[in-house]
Amino acid sequence: MTESLIDRIHGELSRHPHIDPHSHIEPKAAAARGLEDILGYHYFTELAHSAGVPREQIEGEGVPAEPRLDAVVGGLSKFSNTVQHSWLLKIARDLFGFEHAAVTLENWRELDASIRRLTADASWENRVLAESRIEAVFLTNDFDDPLEGFDTERYVPCLRVDELVFHTGKPGVLDRLAGSAGLAISSAADFEEALGKTAARFRERGAKAAAISLPPSFRPAFVEPADFARSFEAVRTRGLDADAGDRAIVSQGVFWHVARCCRQQQLPFDLMIGVRRGVYPGGVFQGQDLLDGRLSLADYADLFNAFPDVTFPVSVLSHPLNHELVSFAWIFPNVLPFGHWWYANTPAVIERDLEQRLEAVPRSKLLGYYSDMYKLEFGYPKFAMYRQVLARVLAKRFVVERGWSEEAAVDLGLDVLVRNPRRVFYDGSV
Amino acid sequence: MTESLIDRIHGELSRHPHIDPHSHIEPKAAAARGLEDILGYHYFTELAHSAGVPREQIEGEGVPAEPRLDAVVGGLSKFSNTVQHSWLLKIARDLFGFEHAAVTLENWRELDASIRRLTADASWENRVLAESRIEAVFLTNDFDDPLEGFDTERYVPCLRVDELVFHTGKPGVLDRLAGSAGLAISSAADFEEALGKTAARFRERGAKAAAISLPPSFRPAFVEPADFARSFEAVRTRGLDADAGDRAIVSQGVFWHVARCCRQQQLPFDLMIGVRRGVYPGGVFQGQDLLDGRLSLADYADLFNAFPDVTFPVSVLSHPLNHELVSFAWIFPNVLPFGHWWYANTPAVIERDLEQRLEAVPRSKLLGYYSDMYKLEFGYPKFAMYRQVLARVLAKRFVVERGWSEEAAVDLGLDVLVRNPRRVFYDGSV
Amino acid sequence: MTESLIDRIHGELSRHPHIDPHSHIEPKAAAARGLEDILGYHYFTELAHSAGVPREQIEGEGVPAEPRLDAVVGGLSKFSNTVQHSWLLKIARDLFGFEHAAVTLENWRELDASIRRLTADASWENRVLAESRIEAVFLTNDFDDPLEGFDTERYVPCLRVDELVFHTGKPGVLDRLAGSAGLAISSAADFEEALGKTAARFRERGAKAAAISLPPSFRPAFVEPADFARSFEAVRTRGLDADAGDRAIVSQGVFWHVARCCRQQQLPFDLMIGVRRGVYPGGVFQGQDLLDGRLSLADYADLFNAFPDVTFPVSVLSHPLNHELVSFAWIFPNVLPFGHWWYANTPAVIERDLEQRLEAVPRSKLLGYYSDMYKLEFGYPKFAMYRQVLARVLAKRFVVERGWSEEAAVDLGLDVLVRNPRRVFYDGSV
Repeated sequence: MTESLIDRIHGELSRHPHIDPHSHIEPKAAAARGLEDILGYHYFTELAHSAGVPREQIEGEGVPAEPRLDAVVGGLSKFSNTVQHSWLLKIARDLFGFEHAAVTLENWRELDASIRRLTADASWENRVLAESRIEAVFLTNDFDDPLEGFDTERYVPCLRVDELVFHTGKPGVLDRLAGSAGLAISSAADFEEALGKTAARFRERGAKAAAISLPPSFRPAFVEPADFARSFEAVRTRGLDADAGDRAIVSQGVFWHVARCCRQQQLPFDLMIGVRRGVYPGGVFQGQDLLDGRLSLADYADLFNAFPDVTFPVSVLSHPLNHELVSFAWIFPNVLPFGHWWYANTPAVIERDLEQRLEAVPRSKLLGYYSDMYKLEFGYPKFAMYRQVLARVLAKRFVVERGWSEEAAVDLGLDVLVRNPRRVFYDGSV
Repeated sequence: MTESLIDRIHGELSRHPHIDPHSHIEPKAAAARGLEDILGYHYFTELAHSAGVPREQIEGEGVPAEPRLDAVVGGLSKFSNTVQHSWLLKIARDLFGFEHAAVTLENWRELDASIRRLTADASWENRVLAESRIEAVFLTNDFDDPLEGFDTERYVPCLRVDELVFHTGKPGVLDRLAGSAGLAISSAADFEEALGKTAARFRERGAKAAAISLPPSFRPAFVEPADFARSFEAVRTRGLDADAGDRAIVSQGVFWHVARCCRQQQLPFDLMIGVRRGVYPGGVFQGQDLLDGRLSLADYADLFNAFPDVTFPVSVLSHPLNHELVSFAWIFPNVLPFGHWWYANTPAVIERDLEQRLEAVPRSKLLGYYSDMYKLEFGYPKFAMYRQVLARVLAKRFVVERGWSEEAAVDLGLDVLVRNPRRVFYDGSV
Repeated sequence: MTESLIDRIHGELSRHPHIDPHSHIEPKAAAARGLEDILGYHYFTELAHSAGVPREQIEGEGVPAEPRLDAVVGGLSKFSNTVQHSWLLKIARDLFGFEHAAVTLENWRELDASIRRLTADASWENRVLAESRIEAVFLTNDFDDPLEGFDTERYVPCLRVDELVFHTGKPGVLDRLAGSAGLAISSAADFEEALGKTAARFRERGAKAAAISLPPSFRPAFVEPADFARSFEAVRTRGLDADAGDRAIVSQGVFWHVARCCRQQQLPFDLMIGVRRGVYPGGVFQGQDLLDGRLSLADYADLFNAFPDVTFPVSVLSHPLNHELVSFAWIFPNVLPFGHWWYANTPAVIERDLEQRLEAVPRSKLLGYYSDMYKLEFGYPKFAMYRQVLARVLAKRFVVERGWSEEAAVDLGLDVLVRNPRRVFYDGSV
């Protein structure tokens, strides 16, 4: 009975198209072109590597595609239990008509051929988006991305600021900013102007958010203008040789200035909190970062207080921090729980996090899910997984335990999955 | 089948009256007098504010009651998913005969009128307590509360010491202590004597506990008498201008002395650990505090070791800390898990915390629940919520999974809900 | 339906013998000889003490066995809810034919007599191992254990290094190492040679792992040889009077050298992370240690990076850290989640931890469970408890939610419970 209730709710949730408010799609090459684009996703390469496949076989310089695919496919059976593996099978079966029980060394060419054939069709992007119920996909754009040559209604720009905040002094960064903003940067004031112009340009080109991922050690803080000017000068002139102290102040100051730009441009500022970069340098591409739970959202209170009119969609990487996220979103009008990120994006973790959010955060503030995908096909299994968990929590916690009607539970689900992301990112109202 | 099992266990648990060992009831105005007393509860004002209702509309100076109620009621639909909203409906329906599906701008006056009419009856307090199965309600009394003019069997005094510990130097605090204890305070020794007299006076007036809420940064520690005397003198003479170091030592010393007084008066000392005050100064009244999980109960080990004959009912605000609380209560005879506090007081969180406690802490030490309420009507939905979760955990974890009889499961539930709080706070035996 | 599905999966899992890769069995006195060996387990003495039984009655000097048993038995009803209590009943009923509903002051002699009678039989060890489905039990051996006089196929040696790492300067430790390694230790180089010889001797005698338990404050780090030599000399000559700084460097250096020895001998190095020793000095024997969650596995990244060819089975004591453990095992090929340790070894905690592991860590890397037992009889209820939880998670998360066949779910369970521990510890392949 509960299972059929879940199925009915899931069926209703699945009828409604929604946006995908965070991805890494390259809009001019959004879809996969072959199996390599699917199995090249870091979830597969890193799990194969974790299960014992040597990195050189997976991504070694000069290794041709075929043996690289053999290597990853050869590792699949060692992580056939993972939810990531289930994404692969769901894509293979539902999108590409693959009928075998597993992808193996014997049959992967068959799947590869289907992918090549189907995705070559001009209608493929439309079809996969329709199957996924996705009507718009947010991108992750470098600050100097010209944002041209693609449909920004379908592929919505988003200003990614990690590089500006954490690598201001890296050779080329300031030059690229100067070039794209069309002004010389020889002072902190110039920098701030260039950043402001960049945000305005993004807004004009249809951007709906700025975004950053943050290490556990980062502490947002207002920096006195004179301090910022002094440290910025050090970083501008000495680059990576600048003092760690100056670099830290510049990170804080730039971050704070991004928040100012978001206020000015009425852009939500996505905070993705808690990633430690390069923890495992021996890992595969994009499989080297991890988390460290030693932080508190209390570290972000000054930011939330200083920018009451900026909306902060917040993702946390550490599952135990979800309780803080729920509590902060329960109190701060401008803090909104945002999706289920990376290491916290597996069903049992989502279920725990979601049931806490749904019982304590205003329904109007819950930003359900994003795909974080690099290739368009992954929106399909990821949103399907999320809808399944959402349906289960609505059925169990609301219909069975709290006596809600199915219709009311579905309506709550649609707020979370469909309506809120659209309203918050497009209308700017919480 | 499981649902009917849960219902039966819930039915049995609901038959037994119990104490409510922590609240903020004002005994001379315990019940609500109108809807404003219900919707004025910070859970509603802060959630309305979090969902976008401006603070000025909710609690602005000089704003009359009617538009303030309009403001909060206008926000209700935005948090109709929360468990707090379900408390409101349960109160409205079960206690006040409200029959609409929701409280709206159109119908709130109807509910207000019912509240005014029913609570005006002299028997109301009796009735609502009987409906809630509550036979005694613990208060939270300032140290200089005369504790007179109310029935201390029904409204049981509890010595709240936050102000003495953390605001010793605030103008007026020492004078109020001197006045209520009947002696001049011109030294640390005087202070300790006054605190001892206060604890004795509370005990004589029927107090059953002392209580304090503690920030994550606090570290309980024994302070050498000479150090305490010196720092106390600085705080006594310089008030808030005293050094931060002296103020911190005074906090530690006063806290430790409260524990001594609890030992002397055989009072349990309720520790409510982990709240950060004023994180969101822009929030509504009582909606400005949050949590910060960066602490360990290991910080309290010296205290638990130094006072083996003091019972410490312990609440933690951070859900992930429940596992430490379970482990400490499993080992330390004087550490008792105490209720489900504030941000950890929502059903899915209670369920996780409770199932861990029930499988690893001696049943004789589990102090089930308290309402934390400000108005008497809230004991009804809050204890109902808790009983529902307790019944579910007993049914699932004990009857279904461990093969216990229903009777044995109910008996365990009654230890937790009814017997232990009565025994620990009244008989002083763990 | 779900319950019968769980039962069927549980039945299948229960048919297969497996190793027990971590215990504290004394191979020459492996089985209990009477009830005192059962109730003397710290889980019972500490819970009885926690529930109010005075320590002097439980383990007082010179108190005879009978009143000591009376004391613990007298406390049982106060923790009859705990899973530990269920272990006792399961042992009593299934292994010793005890038929009463509870062990009481009136009937414990009956149980004691059964234990004495049955365990006196020469076949008892065989029988209890067969009932438990355990085919080999890993030990915890001091570095100077001669490893002689027992069957090392059944009782598999494991090199425990806590003492060498954390108590190098304690009187006698270096002498014992010198004696057992057969060389004088008058320098860091000698020490390293002696440690290498010890590891080789263990390997020759059939050891399958080294193991250590680690406090939350420990930070693994490579130590420059010259620094190690200098600090080692200070510790060697001054013992416990050496500087804290020198002692910390020696701990780090010895720990790192153990990892080197594991690499050389191809031994997995079990890390049991997060225990704080002696938090409650007033506790009973082995009931004085607790946890402190303020650590991150990121502290261990340098170690995992430095020894890619050493397998690290990792246990964490703090339940919230399971999410980090899952994430690190998902990325690092040499990090393997290892069992459910001590305060995290209760069903609801195991269930949460396990479902996260099963959905995100390669199935080939999950090392299901170990007993941690001191007496052979405890493997029976502990593995039974684990199999029950494993069956439930497989049924709920894989068969019901993900649509797997029962056979596939059982097969995954057998990887975790049976095949992986055998392969990782015996074949050395992940």
